[in-house]
Amino acid sequence: MTTRTRRDVPSTALLTDHYELTMLRAALADGTAHHRAVFEVFARRLPEGRRYGVVAGLGRVVEALADLRFDDDQVAWLRATGVVDDRTADHLATYAFTGSIDAYREGEVYFPHSPVLTVRGTFAQCVVLETLILSILNHDSAVASAAARMVTAARGRTLLEMGSRRTHEHAAVAAARAAYIAGFDATSNLDAGFRYAVPTRGTSAHAFTLAHVDEPAAFVSQVATLGAGTSLLVDTYDTAQGIRNAVAAAGTHLGAVRIDSGDLADEARRARALLDSLGATSTRIAVTSDLDEHAIAALADAPVDTYGAGTRLVGGSGHPTAGMVYKLVAIADAPGPHAPLRPVEKTAAGKGSMGGRKIAYRALDDQGGATREIVVRHLPGAPGAGPGRALQTAVVRDGHVVHDPGLAEIRAHHRAAKAELTATDLDLAPGTPRLTADPTDIGNLMGATA
Amino acid sequence: MTTRTRRDVPSTALLTDHYELTMLRAALADGTAHHRAVFEVFARRLPEGRRYGVVAGLGRVVEALADLRFDDDQVAWLRATGVVDDRTADHLATYAFTGSIDAYREGEVYFPHSPVLTVRGTFAQCVVLETLILSILNHDSAVASAAARMVTAARGRTLLEMGSRRTHEHAAVAAARAAYIAGFDATSNLDAGFRYAVPTRGTSAHAFTLAHVDEPAAFVSQVATLGAGTSLLVDTYDTAQGIRNAVAAAGTHLGAVRIDSGDLADEARRARALLDSLGATSTRIAVTSDLDEHAIAALADAPVDTYGAGTRLVGGSGHPTAGMVYKLVAIADAPGPHAPLRPVEKTAAGKGSMGGRKIAYRALDDQGGATREIVVRHLPGAPGAGPGRALQTAVVRDGHVVHDPGLAEIRAHHRAAKAELTATDLDLAPGTPRLTADPTDIGNLMGATA
Repeated sequence: MTTRTRRDVPSTALLTDHYELTMLRAALADGTAHHRAVFEVFARRLPEGRRYGVVAGLGRVVEALADLRFDDDQVAWLRATGVVDDRTADHLATYAFTGSIDAYREGEVYFPHSPVLTVRGTFAQCVVLETLILSILNHDSAVASAAARMVTAARGRTLLEMGSRRTHEHAAVAAARAAYIAGFDATSNLDAGFRYAVPTRGTSAHAFTLAHVDEPAAFVSQVATLGAGTSLLVDTYDTAQGIRNAVAAAGTHLGAVRIDSGDLADEARRARALLDSLGATSTRIAVTSDLDEHAIAALADAPVDTYGAGTRLVGGSGHPTAGMVYKLVAIADAPGPHAPLRPVEKTAAGKGSMGGRKIAYRALDDQGGATREIVVRHLPGAPGAGPGRALQTAVVRDGHVVHDPGLAEIRAHHRAAKAELTATDLDLAPGTPRLTADPTDIGNLMGATA
Repeated sequence: MTTRTRRDVPSTALLTDHYELTMLRAALADGTAHHRAVFEVFARRLPEGRRYGVVAGLGRVVEALADLRFDDDQVAWLRATGVVDDRTADHLATYAFTGSIDAYREGEVYFPHSPVLTVRGTFAQCVVLETLILSILNHDSAVASAAARMVTAARGRTLLEMGSRRTHEHAAVAAARAAYIAGFDATSNLDAGFRYAVPTRGTSAHAFTLAHVDEPAAFVSQVATLGAGTSLLVDTYDTAQGIRNAVAAAGTHLGAVRIDSGDLADEARRARALLDSLGATSTRIAVTSDLDEHAIAALADAPVDTYGAGTRLVGGSGHPTAGMVYKLVAIADAPGPHAPLRPVEKTAAGKGSMGGRKIAYRALDDQGGATREIVVRHLPGAPGAGPGRALQTAVVRDGHVVHDPGLAEIRAHHRAAKAELTATDLDLAPGTPRLTADPTDIGNLMGATA
């Protein structure tokens, strides 16, 4: 099959907004392009009712930057369509990011105004990264933040991510990765397994049952191929009869039954009683069907072993974007590595930003609980020890990646960071963040520190 | 920069759920894999309060199917991780879709239970397409459905899509394409321009102003490079002074000013009065900042020329997925092209499906207004003329693409289909779909026809 559109272009260079390149064009013309600059990523607020957020996507940012090159076709297209002029086209043809990035580790907890990621380099180097970095962090953090709440709700029961069909086909892969970072046990998405080694799971859908002459035939076939430890989907016709057919096909060592419809608490209780009466006492019960953290919490007393979350998870449980922004906070007024940086800030109503490069610490009490998000102006030669746990880590130095942990390490960091939160922070009910790094605090603390 | 994960794999084969391949494995073992089958895509309901939906993504489905091949690395990984056995691995290594697809045209309007897309082929051929097809249609249709409402709200004023930073970096490209299909004028996303020839637009952000010693310097620079017809962002510091600086820099033929904060109706009125008083009577006013169809409609009386929609658009205006499902509706009980098809249906509570392959017509009144969504069982050799406008068109025949229109044709089709709707259908207030093709109707009509 052939199609008319361009495909197979792995470069990430055009996954960006038109205005990044027109700004670059004007900045190359007036020289600002060569002034060193500092941009910061932060969220002015968390989604309504949320008490904390979870950073995800940093590893994908690093990947995307490695693929950020403008190939010949892309440059020619930009020139032909008038997006850029010759000078800008020449600049883009040799673009590679050679600046530095510091960031909250992936899996870290964040709050309003936390300086989640800081980019330093020339204005020309930094300005073209805005859209790509925000797309990745906003999507992945939205999913991870929702996933973390579902993990809390599940109280140690198994959680599977299975929302691929309810989101863009590539967003699905990133969502699986983000959910795993936040503590999900596995995903249905195979590409997430192939690319990121996220554990994958899956057995069968209603179509498999419907494709056979009757349910017993389907179950016998599935068990013959996948073994008695498989999970049988029992609600295609009648759930009780489905469970009887499942145990008849697999025996009492059947791995699990999955229920995808009806009142899940009632269905799970009936299923447990029936399974037990049939001697399948170790057979697990998995439920799926539009689960979010509240639905999962409501099933706490039901005999459910595994939750599958899809639609609501990949949609950030009602908040599909984290709302982070990428703002210039300092710039030099002359080219060269030694020109002094001038803090800059926007004063537009409701969209202000605080000037100057900032770093952040999380103050902890004697029991290791988080007590405060402390944001201070970065000072050259500042002492290494700060007023708490340092939240930013060096990710890229002069274009070289210096921090690229595996998912096991990222998951461990998330668990540790989440363990610093209180029961109030973890409450699923709508609330306001107990910790915040709002500009007023920043100003005061900066004053105290500087 | 180098990273640890696998990239640059253009194949779409693993953008799917684990269970599609375990079902295939069991079906290959028991022979069902070789039975011909019919799967249908439909939505049981529209998002809460929506009166119609817009199909988008079909062109991307065709692209994705062209890239659906299992390469050696993927097959080896599937085998090594135990997702598939040797027989299934051998099958996948030579997989190519050679079946047929019929679908509602891209840009078409749809309702609950409309048979949006039908796939025919062997069970093995069809079952592996479920996740990929749903991911694409659910995402793109959610965005197009929201975009169509914003187009209604804008009443002919210019609409720009600029939500790239608020969604996954590749979803952003698809969202730009979907919004354009539904009538948006342009996008900020460059990759949508490069890949799909969607018109792109963009000038500058607050960072450009902040990067200069003062706002006049930034505006003079932008105008020097982009010309007086550019759009100047005037709300970095003080909007009134920003407008004065803009006209001073560009003259009275300044193209546009953009306002991104504050009460947009008030700001637009003040901006219009000030621009007029400065003689810039033809300078347009663009507003951006979390606009959705309701915010756009509320600005109908304000002197706004251009709306930029981002966050809410790419999130489907509160409904980021269209909720379509992919269901087996008929299968043969023996292999081969002539074995008769048996209609199948699921009877689970609230998740029933109606068996048998169906086709759909839209009945129209004398003025060309839509009066009914008529869904009838497909009968071999059925007459070409139906009870209204035929809604499904042949897209793939025996693995060959036979329908791959350009975006101009798709946009025209959308305009024509939307023109068949009534003011009630287009009302932005929450409501229920006037047209529906619910299973009861289908049953009756099928009875009448068959």
